[in-house]
Amino acid sequence: MSKSAVVIEVTRGPVVESRHEGIAAVMKPDGTVVASWGDIDHPILPRSANKPIQAMAFVESGAVERFGLGNEHISLACASHLGEKRHVETVRAWLKKIGLSEDDLECGTHAPRLQGTIEELVREGRTATAAFNNCSGKHTGMLTTAVQYGEPTKGYIRYDHPVQRRLREVMSALCGIDANGFPYGTDGCGIPTLATPLRRLAQAMASMADPSRLSNKHAEAATRIRAAMNAEPFMMAGTGSFGTRINAALPGVAQVKGGAEGVFCGMLPGLGLGIALKMWDGAGRAAEIAMATLLGHLGVLPADQQNDIIHPPVRNVVGLLVGEMRPAKSWLG
Amino acid sequence: MSKSAVVIEVTRGPVVESRHEGIAAVMKPDGTVVASWGDIDHPILPRSANKPIQAMAFVESGAVERFGLGNEHISLACASHLGEKRHVETVRAWLKKIGLSEDDLECGTHAPRLQGTIEELVREGRTATAAFNNCSGKHTGMLTTAVQYGEPTKGYIRYDHPVQRRLREVMSALCGIDANGFPYGTDGCGIPTLATPLRRLAQAMASMADPSRLSNKHAEAATRIRAAMNAEPFMMAGTGSFGTRINAALPGVAQVKGGAEGVFCGMLPGLGLGIALKMWDGAGRAAEIAMATLLGHLGVLPADQQNDIIHPPVRNVVGLLVGEMRPAKSWLG
Repeated sequence: MSKSAVVIEVTRGPVVESRHEGIAAVMKPDGTVVASWGDIDHPILPRSANKPIQAMAFVESGAVERFGLGNEHISLACASHLGEKRHVETVRAWLKKIGLSEDDLECGTHAPRLQGTIEELVREGRTATAAFNNCSGKHTGMLTTAVQYGEPTKGYIRYDHPVQRRLREVMSALCGIDANGFPYGTDGCGIPTLATPLRRLAQAMASMADPSRLSNKHAEAATRIRAAMNAEPFMMAGTGSFGTRINAALPGVAQVKGGAEGVFCGMLPGLGLGIALKMWDGAGRAAEIAMATLLGHLGVLPADQQNDIIHPPVRNVVGLLVGEMRPAKSWLG
Repeated sequence: MSKSAVVIEVTRGPVVESRHEGIAAVMKPDGTVVASWGDIDHPILPRSANKPIQAMAFVESGAVERFGLGNEHISLACASHLGEKRHVETVRAWLKKIGLSEDDLECGTHAPRLQGTIEELVREGRTATAAFNNCSGKHTGMLTTAVQYGEPTKGYIRYDHPVQRRLREVMSALCGIDANGFPYGTDGCGIPTLATPLRRLAQAMASMADPSRLSNKHAEAATRIRAAMNAEPFMMAGTGSFGTRINAALPGVAQVKGGAEGVFCGMLPGLGLGIALKMWDGAGRAAEIAMATLLGHLGVLPADQQNDIIHPPVRNVVGLLVGEMRPAKSWLG
C-alpha cells in the first residue's frame, strides 16, 4: 500500500481490524496543487458530492427571486437529506410554488434513512413518496430551472436535456476543462454522474471557494450557495449527520458535501482552496474521517472539535467502547 | 495493488467506481494450503464468521438431546439472523426450555435489520428486545451450554468464563495452534473475538468440513452443525440474505457463514476443504462476491447459479441497471 495514499484505520481492541485507502487533492482555483495523496488524475464519479455545483444553474437562473425562495431551498438543492419532516414538507411546498408536484420528480422513492421516520410513517398510516428521496431537493432545483427557462420538465434527468447541459457548462467553467468529454454513469437518482479527474473536482470546489476568476454570474451564485450551506446545515443532510455538523460548526470557514461510494468535497473560502477525496472502496465512514482530518490538517477545524470528529469511538451494541476510527500514521496520523 | 490479492470491482456505466481488496485462503485440515491470495498469515478478527465453531461446544455438551432441540436451534446458534418473527420466537421458546429468559441475554438490543420488521413492530405497538439481536441464537447456545454444565450464566460473555474458555479449546483443536495466545477485541455482541491468522481460520473450517482427524466428539458435532446449516438455512440469516441462499442452494456441498467487517468462511465437505477470506476495508458486499467467486472457482457452485450471484446487478432507486459487482480480471475475473 502506497505511503502517499489517504489511509483510515478501524481498530477493535489492540487490532487494526479494517483499513480504507483513497486519494485526495487540495487545489487552488488556477489549478495549482496545494497538497495531494495518491493518483489525483484518476477519474472518479462525484455522485452527490458535487451537488453544490449542480445547484449553480438554479441559483443563477433568477428563480430564487421569482418564486420567493431562500437559503433553505438553496441548501436543499445541495443536499442529500434524510427525509425528515422539514425536508419533505419544504420540498413539497417548493414544488407547489413552481406549479408542479411530486409526480414531476424523476428521482424515484426510497425508504427514509432514519428508523424514527420509518416508524413515524407507520404510526400515521402513510408511506414514503418521491419527496423523501435524499435527492429530492436537487431534483426540485433542476425542475425549477426548467420552469424558469420555459423548458419541458419531463426528462430533465437525461444527459441531453438543457438542465443537464447547463450543469456541464458550469462544471467546465469551474474545473478548467470541458466536462462534455467526461464519460458518465447513471446516479442512484437517475441523473448522469460525470467521471471527473479528482484534481478537477477539487479545482471546481476551489473556484466556488474563491470565485474571483469566475464570471460575475457564477461568482454571485457560488457565494450565495456557500452562505446557504452554512445558514441551513440541517437541510444539507439532517439529524446527526457528519455534513450537517461540519457545515453548522464552521460558518463562513468551510462548506462540505459528501457523496455515495466514499466521495467528499469541501470549500475553504478563507484559504481560497477546494478539497476533493475518494476512498477506493466506497466507504462513507472513511471519507468522513478523511475530510475531518484534512480540515484539521489545514487548520480550519479547531483543535477542541477535532478529537471527537477525527477519532470517533467504535461502540458495540451495548454501548461499550471497543475501538476507534482514525487516520493512519502513514498518512496524517 | 498486488496482483495476488482478492479484488472485487463495482462498476457504474463504463467506469470502475469502487474496488475492494482482500485476502483468502483455501486449506486442508492438515494445514496444507490449496490456494491463497495475499498475506494469509495476517491475524484477522473472524467476528460472526466463526459462529459454526462457536456452536461446537453447545452441540457437544449433550444439551441438544436434554432439552429436545433440533436443527433450527443449531442453525440459530450459528446464525446472524435478521430478527424476523420465526427467529425471535424460536429464540424465546428455546430460552424458556432451558429455564431462562431474554433478561439473561448479554448481547444487547439493536433495531431489526429489515424495514418490514420495524414497521410490523410499530403496527403491533411493540419494541425490539434482545431476542431481535442478530447474535441472540449464538448467545442462547452459549447460555444453554452454561446451564448444561451447571455454570453461572451471568458473565458468560467474559473472556475467562468457562463458555469462552471452551470456545478457545475447540478453536485450538480445529485450527492446529493454541488460540489462548491470540490477542482479542470485543465483538458487537460483547464476546471476545480472537485475532486469528487467516490461514488458521480456514484450517479450522477445513477441520469441520473433513473432521476425520478430530476426536469423535468434535467430529460428530461438526457433522451435525454442517447438516443443520443446510437443513435450516433461513435460521442462518433470513429473507433475501446471501448466506441463506448459498446454504439452501448447496445442501451437503457447502456451508458458509459471513461476519462483520468483510469476513466470510466456508466448509466444503465433498472436497475436504475450508475457506476463509477477509476484505481489508470491511465491505460485506465484496466478501459475498468473493465467496461466490471462490465457490465457482472450486467447482461447487453450478454454472447456472453463478452469474446472478457473482455478477449481481447494481440498480438505482428507480430500478434501472446502472452497473455490476464482479471479481476483477487481476483476480479470478
